[in-house]
Amino acid sequence: MINQELRDKGSRAKEASRILASLSTDKKNNILAAMAAALEEAELQILIENALDMTQAKENGMSKALLDRLHLTPARIKDMADGLRALVSLPDPIGGVESMWKGAQDIEIGRMRVPLGVIGIIYEARPNVTADAAGLCLKTGNAVILRGGSDALNSNRIITEVLAQAAEAAGAPAGSIQSIENPDRDIVAQLMKLNQYLDVLIPRGGAGLIQSVVLNATVPVIETGIGNCHIYVDSYADLKKAEEIIVNAKCQRPGVCNAAENLLVHEKVAAEFLPKVCKRLRQAGVEIRGDQRTRDLVPDINEASEEDYGKEFLDLILAVKVVDNLEQAMAHIQKYGTGHSEAIVTEHYGHARTFLQGVDAAAVYANASTRFTDGFQFGFGAEIGISTQKLHTRGPMGLKELTTIKYIIYGDGQIRK
Amino acid sequence: MINQELRDKGSRAKEASRILASLSTDKKNNILAAMAAALEEAELQILIENALDMTQAKENGMSKALLDRLHLTPARIKDMADGLRALVSLPDPIGGVESMWKGAQDIEIGRMRVPLGVIGIIYEARPNVTADAAGLCLKTGNAVILRGGSDALNSNRIITEVLAQAAEAAGAPAGSIQSIENPDRDIVAQLMKLNQYLDVLIPRGGAGLIQSVVLNATVPVIETGIGNCHIYVDSYADLKKAEEIIVNAKCQRPGVCNAAENLLVHEKVAAEFLPKVCKRLRQAGVEIRGDQRTRDLVPDINEASEEDYGKEFLDLILAVKVVDNLEQAMAHIQKYGTGHSEAIVTEHYGHARTFLQGVDAAAVYANASTRFTDGFQFGFGAEIGISTQKLHTRGPMGLKELTTIKYIIYGDGQIRK
Repeated sequence: MINQELRDKGSRAKEASRILASLSTDKKNNILAAMAAALEEAELQILIENALDMTQAKENGMSKALLDRLHLTPARIKDMADGLRALVSLPDPIGGVESMWKGAQDIEIGRMRVPLGVIGIIYEARPNVTADAAGLCLKTGNAVILRGGSDALNSNRIITEVLAQAAEAAGAPAGSIQSIENPDRDIVAQLMKLNQYLDVLIPRGGAGLIQSVVLNATVPVIETGIGNCHIYVDSYADLKKAEEIIVNAKCQRPGVCNAAENLLVHEKVAAEFLPKVCKRLRQAGVEIRGDQRTRDLVPDINEASEEDYGKEFLDLILAVKVVDNLEQAMAHIQKYGTGHSEAIVTEHYGHARTFLQGVDAAAVYANASTRFTDGFQFGFGAEIGISTQKLHTRGPMGLKELTTIKYIIYGDGQIRK
Repeated sequence: MINQELRDKGSRAKEASRILASLSTDKKNNILAAMAAALEEAELQILIENALDMTQAKENGMSKALLDRLHLTPARIKDMADGLRALVSLPDPIGGVESMWKGAQDIEIGRMRVPLGVIGIIYEARPNVTADAAGLCLKTGNAVILRGGSDALNSNRIITEVLAQAAEAAGAPAGSIQSIENPDRDIVAQLMKLNQYLDVLIPRGGAGLIQSVVLNATVPVIETGIGNCHIYVDSYADLKKAEEIIVNAKCQRPGVCNAAENLLVHEKVAAEFLPKVCKRLRQAGVEIRGDQRTRDLVPDINEASEEDYGKEFLDLILAVKVVDNLEQAMAHIQKYGTGHSEAIVTEHYGHARTFLQGVDAAAVYANASTRFTDGFQFGFGAEIGISTQKLHTRGPMGLKELTTIKYIIYGDGQIRK
């Protein structure tokens, strides 16, 4: 039996999605602007509700890093509002016909971009995701059902209320933006199987959350975000570039999915490169774990275990390995990588080509930091997450990735022969 | 515990997929030609194995329609071979870079089309699907694991063996084409959860099979084929066109998913249109089931139940309903349709536009038969099925729909600021 709240919300979302699908771009932009203004107006209420969550989370012993993600400030609320306003200026993908051609008997066939319908977002205790996801879904004509982490319950409830009321007052159908705060965990299990109402489910969060959704959902899922990313420094690398790239990819923001977790170095340049770069990384607070050849070159580092090579540390830890050649580097990446972002540093034309073509990942780089795997860095102007599955889309997902297509066919009475 | 056979085949397929991904177009075309030739050479063996399946199926009381689908003849084997040869002349989607642009700091970003990886196909007792799916996957650089209906076990085994051996002899990696004949049903359940090796699962068959895969798979699924298709005859319809379209959509091939199951008629034209068209449909052997207003106009027809409107008959049965207006027709379609193919017959510009934009289905027609929803009729040159889900793709799936993308990024040492 489906929980009554879920059924009601699902049904309202489905109804709303039909109206949302044909809202004009101007109307959607007005709604986004109204949502942004409403968030700022409700600043005090939001801060109060967030304070309740923070108090509870501290009592529950939440880690400092997670508390920081949960915490809202006036500046962060303004960031959320600005994020909504930024969507206004982005092109509306809906309704565009990407190509049109003649099929059998000269029927005219067009590929029209349309919303996915109803999107479910399951995420952790990050209240900013609430506004972010609501805005992206609204802009793309999708209804959204949000399920945030239980530690952010009060924050999410107030943000959803504020956004939904503002959206409705500005002309969005009721049910466009909804959230589920019922703390019962069984409701999440049911949400994952709500095929009758949900078109897609997007989990945003850590590996545990994502795996749970992938394994339990019957609704189509876009798997996001697990990144065990490698930087391979080739024998033909410009070692200065290589050093900057690994330091950036490891240290600039170690807790995110496009940060590097592994460094592979060609044996010919290892002796020159590794002692220097490891010194710099360690000065930046990075713990190095290396294979035997790395440990022969760099003193006082721990041995990298098999497990270390397969791990997304999301921390200032780097696994290092010396490889015989490009092929061995690529085989290592194939074995341990998660298909997120992989980079080669080389000045060799053929090696760059081999790597770019042969490595199977969402984003494959020659001579740039893996940290660029991001909707904004790619120029999409928005990002709902980074897909690491192959169905639907791969890599950073912007507005277009929250849409699908339908074929529209113009005939003059044609029948099939 | 994963069954050992599945694990072995999955692992071989994964290995094969890496090599397949970078096979040249010429090489893949040579392999397809070799597969076609091998099928024809093995005609006698295939007919013998198929005869075993036919005997068994008859003993099991298989219906005539299903027996016909199971039955292979020299002509049908030649059709399978010709189908493989037809793939040779189609453009290879793999490796093309669809667009390239500058991202942050002028990194160059390209969208490269790449194979999905390993595709699982679960289908019924139609041995021709074996050759068809193997060919489509090979052309797109995907490894395939086939699981056909247990009634076609011997046919599928021999066809897979012949194709796999020919492919391997012509240069395909071992493991490119594999099938699972183990009759244990539990193995299908395991196949659906083989996320470690499978990138996508495509069920091809009836509603029961597809629902079972959607509900049980943890591997991403492309849902195909359930079509409860409507023809709406508007008050502004050219009634001659309308008659031809509904007769074609219902009768030309009633057992397929793009055949019409429902006729909706505007009340203004019902009295003129329905008696005539129903007479013609009944002469063609169609059983009409109508609402009260239809029954007032057409004598001696049964009442359409609520259930009838929601049903994919796949047979010479048509549910008919008189509606007040376009809006009511669209609401009916939204309620009962499966998002496959929907058509309006009208000469009214605005009504055609409203219908094409407002109806949420894979293919929406103005003035043409729903029977055109087909990869070949659309000009794709091939078809693996018709997607009725919104994720990844919708409608007829050709070669491109068996691929995904990856981003390739050319840098000169850029790091994220």
